[in-house]
Amino acid sequence: MSTTLAGAAFAKGHGTENDFVILPDPDGALPLTAERVAALCDRRAGIGADGVLRVVRSAKHPDAAAQADAAEWFMDYWNADGSIAEMCGNGIRVFLRYLTEAGLAAGSAGTAGAEITIATRSGLRTGRMGETIAVQMGTPALLGTTGAQLGGVGYPGVAADAGNPHLVCPVPAGELAGLDLTAPPGIDPVVFPHGANVEFVTEVPEPVPGADRHVAMRVYERGAGETRSCGSGVCAVAAVVLGEAGETAGTVAVDVLGGRLTATVDGDSLILAGPAVIVATGTLA
Amino acid sequence: MSTTLAGAAFAKGHGTENDFVILPDPDGALPLTAERVAALCDRRAGIGADGVLRVVRSAKHPDAAAQADAAEWFMDYWNADGSIAEMCGNGIRVFLRYLTEAGLAAGSAGTAGAEITIATRSGLRTGRMGETIAVQMGTPALLGTTGAQLGGVGYPGVAADAGNPHLVCPVPAGELAGLDLTAPPGIDPVVFPHGANVEFVTEVPEPVPGADRHVAMRVYERGAGETRSCGSGVCAVAAVVLGEAGETAGTVAVDVLGGRLTATVDGDSLILAGPAVIVATGTLA
Repeated sequence: MSTTLAGAAFAKGHGTENDFVILPDPDGALPLTAERVAALCDRRAGIGADGVLRVVRSAKHPDAAAQADAAEWFMDYWNADGSIAEMCGNGIRVFLRYLTEAGLAAGSAGTAGAEITIATRSGLRTGRMGETIAVQMGTPALLGTTGAQLGGVGYPGVAADAGNPHLVCPVPAGELAGLDLTAPPGIDPVVFPHGANVEFVTEVPEPVPGADRHVAMRVYERGAGETRSCGSGVCAVAAVVLGEAGETAGTVAVDVLGGRLTATVDGDSLILAGPAVIVATGTLA
Repeated sequence: MSTTLAGAAFAKGHGTENDFVILPDPDGALPLTAERVAALCDRRAGIGADGVLRVVRSAKHPDAAAQADAAEWFMDYWNADGSIAEMCGNGIRVFLRYLTEAGLAAGSAGTAGAEITIATRSGLRTGRMGETIAVQMGTPALLGTTGAQLGGVGYPGVAADAGNPHLVCPVPAGELAGLDLTAPPGIDPVVFPHGANVEFVTEVPEPVPGADRHVAMRVYERGAGETRSCGSGVCAVAAVVLGEAGETAGTVAVDVLGGRLTATVDGDSLILAGPAVIVATGTLA
């Protein structure tokens, strides 16, 4: 690991097993580079994570200074490969949890039901705090029917745009666990010229309190393979599940391999709620 | 993560990218269980590591109390699945590095060339400290010729016992990088009734200062797949490389995916030397 981050404070946390190294850096003074982010996220030679969440005062970062009056803190999010990303449905909850546990959220923001607004590269986002944390994500647009190929079997599905491209394919009850997602599903390159995340989804009969529908999903993320969770994929699944039922509002509980998320849709509004846990804090050597 | 370890100190470190969570626990008071070790080693929901190294005073642990006069500290080593292991050629160096960096090694033990003796479940082990750390491992026994099958190709090799079973297969120069180790190599179940770690090895023409021979290896570990490093595998490779040359003494530099180790053989003595790095210290939440 680069010694230039030596002595810096860090935390590690996850949301439905999408995990992050958090770097508190109020003044934006850490010399963060793509190479150092990749070294931090290396799962054997570094701390290991899917990405880095730098915690910077909005006023101290050029990408957020214009939002400083509305949001004290800016989520400076980096992918594990060192590239910069706009938003992350799981990362934002971990960021908000860290703010409250570290005492960085003003006033009563750490109490259940309190709201915290932060700056992100996709604008201001407000989280409602509690055992789970709920954040407005916006409802994905449904684009029409297409399909995926997996192991020689065709799965009809619905294309959706959640800021990034998705393909949501229902599978019969009992077949989800047996799907082989070690290789990428085949998709239509005309529909998805830049690829897509593919979600396979099936109804779960057991009801979830507070939810109108309950499904389980597995996701193959373009460039990453099967993952434990995908926040935008859960949003796409909720929109498709409600859309197929002819509904424009409702709460969908979605079980992913890493836990459970719920998406509450009301027209263009989609609020994604789920857990966020800080597992350790410390100092880089 | 279990809350019963909340507040416990930890460090994370690695040796040639074989990585460990280190738990300082002088009095052996931490309520460590297989389940909690597995939770700690979970790479997304926990800290993430190949294993846990608990740092306990020998006098305070039933497995080491008899060694307490000779070694102040006991390496209580757990695999990532929560099972207990006797020794680990990479783990012991990380353990020794932690002892000196944490100021737990008595007297001048942190200075280059100093020796530290610790207790392990396979007896007392002494490390010589420096930029690399050198530890006596013992020379693996060569058991005879057999072979591995990989992608329809047969690779003759030599079976070796390094405390655990190994099969060392030379491959022609230029072919090592292209081997497909995503599936386990086929081996003779009569020779290896409990399986084996399979090392593919090739000579590297560039000399390494202080080494008589220089090779590169890739290893498929039984139950784990291809790994970045395997200490006992490096010992087996060194013994086979020297044995094939009709020599009983010499230093072999072995490049693994995670770095470089050197094995110095002199009859029954084999000293394994390599890097060990602490990347972070902190507190479990």
